[in-house]
Amino acid sequence: MKIVVVGSVALDSIKTPFGDQKEILGGSATHFSLAASFFTKVGLVAVVGKDFPEKHISFLKDRGVDLAGLQVVDGETFRWEGYYEYDLNTAHTLDTKLNVFESFDPSLPADYRQAPFLFLANVDPDIQIKVLEQARQDAFSVCDTMNFWIERKPDSLKELVKRVNFCLMNDSEAREFCGTFSLLDSARQILDMGPEAVIFKKGEHGALLFMDQSHFAAPAFPLEEIKDPTGAGDSFAGGFLGYLANAGDVTEEHIRRAVIYGSVMASFNVEGFGTDRVARLTADEIEERFQVFRQITNF
Amino acid sequence: MKIVVVGSVALDSIKTPFGDQKEILGGSATHFSLAASFFTKVGLVAVVGKDFPEKHISFLKDRGVDLAGLQVVDGETFRWEGYYEYDLNTAHTLDTKLNVFESFDPSLPADYRQAPFLFLANVDPDIQIKVLEQARQDAFSVCDTMNFWIERKPDSLKELVKRVNFCLMNDSEAREFCGTFSLLDSARQILDMGPEAVIFKKGEHGALLFMDQSHFAAPAFPLEEIKDPTGAGDSFAGGFLGYLANAGDVTEEHIRRAVIYGSVMASFNVEGFGTDRVARLTADEIEERFQVFRQITNF
Repeated sequence: MKIVVVGSVALDSIKTPFGDQKEILGGSATHFSLAASFFTKVGLVAVVGKDFPEKHISFLKDRGVDLAGLQVVDGETFRWEGYYEYDLNTAHTLDTKLNVFESFDPSLPADYRQAPFLFLANVDPDIQIKVLEQARQDAFSVCDTMNFWIERKPDSLKELVKRVNFCLMNDSEAREFCGTFSLLDSARQILDMGPEAVIFKKGEHGALLFMDQSHFAAPAFPLEEIKDPTGAGDSFAGGFLGYLANAGDVTEEHIRRAVIYGSVMASFNVEGFGTDRVARLTADEIEERFQVFRQITNF
Repeated sequence: MKIVVVGSVALDSIKTPFGDQKEILGGSATHFSLAASFFTKVGLVAVVGKDFPEKHISFLKDRGVDLAGLQVVDGETFRWEGYYEYDLNTAHTLDTKLNVFESFDPSLPADYRQAPFLFLANVDPDIQIKVLEQARQDAFSVCDTMNFWIERKPDSLKELVKRVNFCLMNDSEAREFCGTFSLLDSARQILDMGPEAVIFKKGEHGALLFMDQSHFAAPAFPLEEIKDPTGAGDSFAGGFLGYLANAGDVTEEHIRRAVIYGSVMASFNVEGFGTDRVARLTADEIEERFQVFRQITNF
């Protein structure tokens, strides 16, 4: 087991200007592990209800995702319903039913505790901290979050950020978290809290990596059509950490490439609803798109 | 004379969260020619009133800008007053006094008509077309515009776009001009009209170049402080066309580098009010920042 991801597995109902799908496979841990599964072995920690369709379990197993950490409990699976306008940058929530996710109490199976890489997807920062305490102390840990926790649990979030290796955020979340419009200032503040690096995800504008003495700007892939942005951030994280875990080397050279692999996986994710596009992806397609990123940034 | 620019020379009163300055030197032709003056010889075509301060004339001459095309006529100089909020992407206009600019009727001096490069800064597209007709037929022409003309003179603007080599626009302007949210679709539509390339300026998110079979994404420079974004787009254009005109070579390799030099000049422009920062710039600083662009995009 190279990576453990802790997050949500959900059934999403999504409407965009390009279509409408009900109760499809979603959730942060799902999108992350699918993307990462193209690079390395991932163990998934999440909770679903007894109503969770068996076909989704089979699908994840077929992709090589280890599900020993997936709790199946009495009750209904987490459901999210939302829509996007033509500006696909912002998700509008219509309904959130946390269901069994409300009392999610992650417990890492014994062999998961030895995994060298850990992704703490967007959940309550207090839970993220509890997971961090179960993992091996030298695990390379990356956290994500969302505005909900920035507003409701800023102190817990700061405590978490202090303790992880890398921090991922949307640019708007970083600005809110740090109380400044400047991303450079936000990056400084976050790096001062402890992490070695912070990555700002900017959707259609790409991603920015900030380290103590270094900065890297990755563009977004110029996409023909964006069908559904749900899960783009987690697919980014999956490509990013999947590549790094497989390389087994967290030097800056690899970190930069990992940002590009993250961007590649996010770009595929948004080409279909839910997991549709990534489910039919091939290693060759990933490599080809990585090379296109080289072409579009070369001068 | 390598480049002729036709546009405005103005006196700007600008307020941003970082300061407040009254009646400083501004205008599209000013910012363009200042930036381009670091690369090549520029001739400026614009109109000012008799009230235009002599010190600004001397300043432009000292930078090597040819002012044979600057008309000084009875009346007052164009004045613009505006402010920016913390989100420095949007200029809010408080007052526009076109004054002598209202009846601007550009006439290119004889030697200007032989210039191999032409920049049609943001003015009425009918005037831009008239200038194009005065220039040599094989001049390499680039146009800029703004939402005001997209809304009021879309047909003239389309006619202009048909006839230029390159088209520059803000991303939001391109979306409005083409009636689509997709920048890729906007680029296709504009390329279909005639130009060989279109460049979308995205402010803090960098710039995108689209050509028939090619795409290039340039990031923005991660700036410590942005004092005043006024003129950033024209400084971009000045760096872009200045570099190209000096190279005398419009192959894609040079076009990509020109986009980066444009980004370099825009990044310096916003570090000071009006022309303050660019006025004290050195060639070494430009080259140094170009190299930083290489570092921050390398993977």
